[in-house]
Amino acid sequence: MTVRVGIIGATGYTGVELVRILSRHPGVELVGLTSRSYAGMPLWEVYPHLYKYNAMTCRQLDLPDLLDAAEVVFVALPHGHAMPVALETARRGKKLIDLGADFRLKDYRVYEEWYQVSHTARELLGKAVYGLPELNRDKIKGAGLVANPGCYPTSVILALAPLLKHGMIDPGSIIIDAKSGASGAGRGLSLGAHFCEVNENFKAYKVAAHRHTPEIEQELGRLAGKDLTVSFTPHLLPVTRGILSTVYAGLNACLKSEAIREVFLDYYRDEFFVRVLPEGVLPQIKWVAGTNHCDLGITVDARTGRVIVISAVDNIVKGASGQAVQNLNIVCGLPEETALDGPGLYP
Amino acid sequence: MTVRVGIIGATGYTGVELVRILSRHPGVELVGLTSRSYAGMPLWEVYPHLYKYNAMTCRQLDLPDLLDAAEVVFVALPHGHAMPVALETARRGKKLIDLGADFRLKDYRVYEEWYQVSHTARELLGKAVYGLPELNRDKIKGAGLVANPGCYPTSVILALAPLLKHGMIDPGSIIIDAKSGASGAGRGLSLGAHFCEVNENFKAYKVAAHRHTPEIEQELGRLAGKDLTVSFTPHLLPVTRGILSTVYAGLNACLKSEAIREVFLDYYRDEFFVRVLPEGVLPQIKWVAGTNHCDLGITVDARTGRVIVISAVDNIVKGASGQAVQNLNIVCGLPEETALDGPGLYP
Amino acid sequence: MTVRVGIIGATGYTGVELVRILSRHPGVELVGLTSRSYAGMPLWEVYPHLYKYNAMTCRQLDLPDLLDAAEVVFVALPHGHAMPVALETARRGKKLIDLGADFRLKDYRVYEEWYQVSHTARELLGKAVYGLPELNRDKIKGAGLVANPGCYPTSVILALAPLLKHGMIDPGSIIIDAKSGASGAGRGLSLGAHFCEVNENFKAYKVAAHRHTPEIEQELGRLAGKDLTVSFTPHLLPVTRGILSTVYAGLNACLKSEAIREVFLDYYRDEFFVRVLPEGVLPQIKWVAGTNHCDLGITVDARTGRVIVISAVDNIVKGASGQAVQNLNIVCGLPEETALDGPGLYP
Amino acid sequence: MTVRVGIIGATGYTGVELVRILSRHPGVELVGLTSRSYAGMPLWEVYPHLYKYNAMTCRQLDLPDLLDAAEVVFVALPHGHAMPVALETARRGKKLIDLGADFRLKDYRVYEEWYQVSHTARELLGKAVYGLPELNRDKIKGAGLVANPGCYPTSVILALAPLLKHGMIDPGSIIIDAKSGASGAGRGLSLGAHFCEVNENFKAYKVAAHRHTPEIEQELGRLAGKDLTVSFTPHLLPVTRGILSTVYAGLNACLKSEAIREVFLDYYRDEFFVRVLPEGVLPQIKWVAGTNHCDLGITVDARTGRVIVISAVDNIVKGASGQAVQNLNIVCGLPEETALDGPGLYP
Repeated sequence: MTVRVGIIGATGYTGVELVRILSRHPGVELVGLTSRSYAGMPLWEVYPHLYKYNAMTCRQLDLPDLLDAAEVVFVALPHGHAMPVALETARRGKKLIDLGADFRLKDYRVYEEWYQVSHTARELLGKAVYGLPELNRDKIKGAGLVANPGCYPTSVILALAPLLKHGMIDPGSIIIDAKSGASGAGRGLSLGAHFCEVNENFKAYKVAAHRHTPEIEQELGRLAGKDLTVSFTPHLLPVTRGILSTVYAGLNACLKSEAIREVFLDYYRDEFFVRVLPEGVLPQIKWVAGTNHCDLGITVDARTGRVIVISAVDNIVKGASGQAVQNLNIVCGLPEETALDGPGLYP
Repeated sequence: MTVRVGIIGATGYTGVELVRILSRHPGVELVGLTSRSYAGMPLWEVYPHLYKYNAMTCRQLDLPDLLDAAEVVFVALPHGHAMPVALETARRGKKLIDLGADFRLKDYRVYEEWYQVSHTARELLGKAVYGLPELNRDKIKGAGLVANPGCYPTSVILALAPLLKHGMIDPGSIIIDAKSGASGAGRGLSLGAHFCEVNENFKAYKVAAHRHTPEIEQELGRLAGKDLTVSFTPHLLPVTRGILSTVYAGLNACLKSEAIREVFLDYYRDEFFVRVLPEGVLPQIKWVAGTNHCDLGITVDARTGRVIVISAVDNIVKGASGQAVQNLNIVCGLPEETALDGPGLYP
Repeated sequence: MTVRVGIIGATGYTGVELVRILSRHPGVELVGLTSRSYAGMPLWEVYPHLYKYNAMTCRQLDLPDLLDAAEVVFVALPHGHAMPVALETARRGKKLIDLGADFRLKDYRVYEEWYQVSHTARELLGKAVYGLPELNRDKIKGAGLVANPGCYPTSVILALAPLLKHGMIDPGSIIIDAKSGASGAGRGLSLGAHFCEVNENFKAYKVAAHRHTPEIEQELGRLAGKDLTVSFTPHLLPVTRGILSTVYAGLNACLKSEAIREVFLDYYRDEFFVRVLPEGVLPQIKWVAGTNHCDLGITVDARTGRVIVISAVDNIVKGASGQAVQNLNIVCGLPEETALDGPGLYP
Repeated sequence: MTVRVGIIGATGYTGVELVRILSRHPGVELVGLTSRSYAGMPLWEVYPHLYKYNAMTCRQLDLPDLLDAAEVVFVALPHGHAMPVALETARRGKKLIDLGADFRLKDYRVYEEWYQVSHTARELLGKAVYGLPELNRDKIKGAGLVANPGCYPTSVILALAPLLKHGMIDPGSIIIDAKSGASGAGRGLSLGAHFCEVNENFKAYKVAAHRHTPEIEQELGRLAGKDLTVSFTPHLLPVTRGILSTVYAGLNACLKSEAIREVFLDYYRDEFFVRVLPEGVLPQIKWVAGTNHCDLGITVDARTGRVIVISAVDNIVKGASGQAVQNLNIVCGLPEETALDGPGLYP
């Protein structure tokens, strides 16, 4: 038995990563790939690394047609484009996993304020499940609409969940200094993605203004049981893949690293994709590149009373397409690690 | 049924790549990992990207012990170290795949001249098979000792085999301009491998003096049916993985790219790992990184009467550990692509 | 006494490099910067690294206006745009240094064939001087129109001039394998310049079809005293700055590296910017990055009877803007090294 | 009139950077270069980018000899090595600028605790001046012993000085997330500096344990007028040069970015090397690479009541050798910008 799957937006970096991951998935049959820019072209001509692996041709999106063929649809488009697709998918009783932001924020007003777009599918917000399996697995199981988390939020929420859940930190003290590889900005052309401007360079951007902030605050607030605000500063790394988030928080009690690590180990006891690293080992993005893992390293700074949690993910895998396939597996009742296991490349 | 396999030199870059590839191999059981530098340490502590994937501890080499446990042994050590291992392995009737240079050159005098080491296992040279499956598959099947090709020679021989086999080029005109990522030099410390000296830099090295030259000449000569010399210039790329070789040769007749491509397509008709790219598409190392593919692009320069073949491999996979596993699969009668299929990461 | 200078196209990478170099030039006063994309904007807002160094505002090109103010004009635009400027500049008796290709090729038919543009200033071709000072210094002195060489040709011609001048190599045997950093493609947006497509990647492009080929052949032919063709293969390096060309040629006589190096040392005896490296030392692009030097390394491959000359330049400095300032200094009778001396950054 | 200068440790990255900068200094004569590893070798053979720029030969350190020849000595050695040199230099009445840590911390016990070395020149600690010219210019003028600041502290102290001086932030709330290029670790060989381990990677290191912490706290405490502790987390960037520090602090009052920027502009009014960037412009390391500038960008996060100051320096220039030359200029009464002006390379 295989699940018939369609990908809307197959030629962006997250779309083609879905194709790569699913090419190893024994339970999935790809039935449609859409692309606005490359309609009519075989996918492997757009991405020759797929030569001999995928023989499909990209098509313009014809939603009724795609929903006839597919049971589950991934939407790998910029925010704003998933709302009409979701409405139609819901009407047909098919399932949708949205890699964009349209259904992540529960409050449409927050969405409209940060994304500067009207929300045209508000009635679905209540049904959408925030697709972070380590926190919401049970809800994802029956979901018709999964809002796949943002890359930064994935790295941050997993870093803080045990601490907030156990009330170990001051929710008002959270500072997140995050660094992402350039693939996070997608394949679109811009001066900010030009090789000569990124290479041998490093900068912060959208300081105190990045759209992942309300998503982080919503989910951390849920864990804390009350509203909170965070400082969130994204930076651009001169690498292709990977996010490393360095998260600071004031401890409510004087605790040692070992004690906190125990809490993490317990919290993520059954989670294959979360790796709590041993004392003295700190995450490196190369250790998770190409994988669906989130590596966590914990340090207590006794001098300042703060805990520093460092979290590494591959922004396109656990931060996007890998997590989306993890959600697919859960939604379809398949083993959660299907197509997602195997260590990354090193060096 | 599984094959019991040992790896001698498991903590170098090619050794750990064997572990990575074999971790996805359903027909292989790892029974021993040796390391001089890290004996007594769990492999995942040396390479944390393997955390949750490999729980074995590195040991000092105890050859009799290892050969008791293993049916096939990989040697992933610098040249000079495989000779004693091969003698003992042969004595025991076990199989050995050597990733180093000790058994690649048929004439021990050539080996001794270029490598400046005495050959102490000359009696095995006649039995060793040069492990380039696309050329020598039948011989590899029954081999007890496989000499896994060098990374540069793999990229070069596959680029020229069809042309030499069909007598289409002047064997005296061959010029090979090759560029390799820094992992080719291994994990050993040296100023030449220091980040600040490699990054944003590019240079040629060992011009007209690289040890892969006689290996290339031996195999190309065999294809041409006569001795030949080549100009071979390696360069160091500021990337981790990948070799791109640009190979020039004078054409014996005025031919178009299309005609030559047909010859290549025919020659590699049944070869999954060799991808002859369509007209106008030229190989890029990123398209093969992390895979066992060799991508080939062919251009004829009508103005000069030369053909330019460009060849890309991942130096650690098709140029080393992947090809070694391909040889293992052949030697053991397993499907040749086992653990080696799946597209690479892009971007 | 200062020279009044204007720059047409000041916000491309070669334009802004002219500004950088001239900011250290005691004999130059910048009187106008033009930019189509950033007219009305202070240059330092476009390039904040110039903050506190340049307070000028970019303007739309008003040629009569600029020629009223400037004695010498640099044109740092894509090919095709310098022809009308040159006609007007000549009419006014002002001097022009063109960093593009419009006046490099003596035969307008060759230009039109390779560049696919009509040449609308043919009458100036006879007056234009090919601005490679090491070969044409005397002609540049009195020139009103200097055609600044291409980046690849600069590296190649300097590598071969002594050999061709002395008839030491077979002119029909020349093969040039060249590798350039990404800044060579300029600041324009394209998928080929996207960070994620260039980083950790390497490829050849325009094989046997690059526009610098006829320029190289013209100048090498002049040195050889007869027409010749070359194989020229450019590649894209994942670095920002630098070109390394590896040049192969068949020797007419059996010579040692030392003898050839002597010829080079003698030929470039008085040339500050050309550094003939000692035996066994091979150029690295990092050694010339940010400087106007061309470093040359010579190796003889006795086995094949070929000489391999390796040449390194910074594509934006000696390959473009630095050489243009060198030409300015010559044209204006200033010391040739003004604003161009000082070692590069290392590491 | 020229100052006679010696460099102890001329072949490390900061030593050779001193040579590079001083090669453009009209008021300095180099009289001695010492190197333990390369004694007897011309410096340009160790660093061929200096070919034609420096003809000196490295020597073993002979301190009396060097102090006979030199008026000022730079020490560019690891911590622990400057103490005996400083004692002898003081005895002779010569001047010393130490690029290491031996004289940065006023309290020898703090030094001994963090550096795990006995302080053998405690009597000089009172005379040593912390060589951050923007804060201590007047003291540096007459100093015989200048302790050149660490690279991280330079970037951090300049980012916070105006805020602490004016009591605008809570001194207990300071969190510093800093990222450095790999040259910061020097030229010594280690796995952590191996190209394949740094490239395409990113990690934090020495979290809550880096030796620059007490130096930062000492100087910030002096500015605040009271003791304070900070959280300081260094990270390793896959670039050669540059530090970017992202500094968070709680504001004592509800202020706008503009108001705070005014305070910075006023504080650094006369400082050529500090560039306070305009509203909305954030520092990038490429804008300062190769220069002695420290670029500062200020953002207020009104939602959290924090100010985020981002600071960029070149770790080898303003973070080491450039600042050391700035101190030399001050000590010798030369114009402070001598040999240090000129914009950096871009791209």
